[in-house]
Amino acid sequence: MSKELVFGHQNPDTDAIVAAKAFSYLENKLGADTEPVALGEPNEETKYVLNHFDEPALRVITKAAPEVDKVMLVDHNEPQQSVSDIADVTVTHVVDHHRIAGFETTQPLFYRAEPLGCVSTVVYKLFKENKVEIPAKLAGLMLSAIISDTLLLKSPTTTPTDVAVVKDLAKIADVDYETYGLAMLKAGTNIDSKSEKELIDADAKSFEMNGSTVRVAQINTVDLDDVFKRQAALEAAAKDENKTEGYDLFLILATNILNSDSELLVVGAPTEPVEKAFGKKLANNRLSLPGVVSRKKQVVPPLTDAFNA
Amino acid sequence: MSKELVFGHQNPDTDAIVAAKAFSYLENKLGADTEPVALGEPNEETKYVLNHFDEPALRVITKAAPEVDKVMLVDHNEPQQSVSDIADVTVTHVVDHHRIAGFETTQPLFYRAEPLGCVSTVVYKLFKENKVEIPAKLAGLMLSAIISDTLLLKSPTTTPTDVAVVKDLAKIADVDYETYGLAMLKAGTNIDSKSEKELIDADAKSFEMNGSTVRVAQINTVDLDDVFKRQAALEAAAKDENKTEGYDLFLILATNILNSDSELLVVGAPTEPVEKAFGKKLANNRLSLPGVVSRKKQVVPPLTDAFNA
Repeated sequence: MSKELVFGHQNPDTDAIVAAKAFSYLENKLGADTEPVALGEPNEETKYVLNHFDEPALRVITKAAPEVDKVMLVDHNEPQQSVSDIADVTVTHVVDHHRIAGFETTQPLFYRAEPLGCVSTVVYKLFKENKVEIPAKLAGLMLSAIISDTLLLKSPTTTPTDVAVVKDLAKIADVDYETYGLAMLKAGTNIDSKSEKELIDADAKSFEMNGSTVRVAQINTVDLDDVFKRQAALEAAAKDENKTEGYDLFLILATNILNSDSELLVVGAPTEPVEKAFGKKLANNRLSLPGVVSRKKQVVPPLTDAFNA
Repeated sequence: MSKELVFGHQNPDTDAIVAAKAFSYLENKLGADTEPVALGEPNEETKYVLNHFDEPALRVITKAAPEVDKVMLVDHNEPQQSVSDIADVTVTHVVDHHRIAGFETTQPLFYRAEPLGCVSTVVYKLFKENKVEIPAKLAGLMLSAIISDTLLLKSPTTTPTDVAVVKDLAKIADVDYETYGLAMLKAGTNIDSKSEKELIDADAKSFEMNGSTVRVAQINTVDLDDVFKRQAALEAAAKDENKTEGYDLFLILATNILNSDSELLVVGAPTEPVEKAFGKKLANNRLSLPGVVSRKKQVVPPLTDAFNA
């Protein structure tokens, strides 16, 4: 069996990095020969996590085909979120918790997706089904990924399974997950030290919506004013990316992780589907979205529907 | 929770019918409210199976949206193989063992595919993971589905998992699977009593290949001459379907289930990708394919590659 690479999406968040590590570990225990890699450097939050559990960062790749024929994807399936030469390799495994779009294979494959808060929760279930023990350090990483994706179990994407798994992983890792989780999330919201371009690149994904390329970036903060005092500069940075990367529409979702409210900043066109998706008119290029914290569950689906309507 | 329908592909084979029954049973045990239905009448083989285990056939539907908002798919994902109004309902679950193509959702979902010989083998694993007991009758049906899809564990799609599951299900159902399996397969090869149109419709699937619509029918037999003595009439029937249904290319894969050889009959255009896929020239519109028994594993992938080359 030839070696396979395991990786999460571009602009990796904690879940993308951790799930690659965890699923690769599991596959190797089951007899495969895999290496976890990443499609980008770890963000501030992920650095905090890796440092806390004394784990190395992943090797960063920009292409897969020069190294391997086959790959395994975690935490994504849409080709535009994957490695640049994804069309040149065969996907043998996917473990995910997102919608499926633009994903095609010529051969049957292993595909495991569940509508859970975090793909590390799915990977946890795979460990249990295969009766493979989770080492304490890896449990700490997986716990961090679930806290990151669910904003400490407060996002509407959180399921009872995520809650139960966090509690079990906290036991294995011997961590007080609430204290640790808040410190970890705060470590990821260090905004002032970053440029506008860094802020809109750090956690951004592209979506094809009825012919338009829509970029949705999310910025977590403990104070929305810290984001919007830089509104003009953020708009300029997004406008610049639309031009250089060919995006039609750039959405910046600023989320207050303490009270679970968001404010959306909209740059580009068309803006009508955005207004329609949330039933509100833009004011100063912004939409207030109280109670919205999940790009996947509360932003992409209504937006997709509005684009297709 | 509102009721959901569970169904397999059009032109249902034994696996499509059985997996709908089995997955619906499991989901209901886990608290869902589902009804298994079918997108067509059972074929000869499936009738033999249902009769043998004294199980009723499934209700046949042509549309889902008038009844339900949500559906669960088994044994397929490609929209052109599904219910005619699949675009008007939400797919919440897929259990499959095929390639993924043309399948898109706006929301995260439960998707479970594994490259195993039969989707009933995947469903068996779900029963085990959820610790739900398989009733003896249902075990008999699932056993039949695996025997059907793997041609009594002889198809190259057969995995060690399929073999182990057949043996366990045979115990639960108290069946000698080799004797029963051969009788069941023979019951499905009753060719003489059927019209050419019936023969090419009974187990046929459509595939989009680089802009062409390719229809691939499979006819199992215990003597290839029983099929090809009717070659002219089969060609006429396929030509007629190409015209009325808008297929570009109609492939009839006649398979001898006793010695695992096939002969392919080709009607329509383009024929170049077919010749390229198998590295042979058509003679009398036919290609001899010794050792080929699996449409999914030995016909569709090389054909897709040849169309995309």
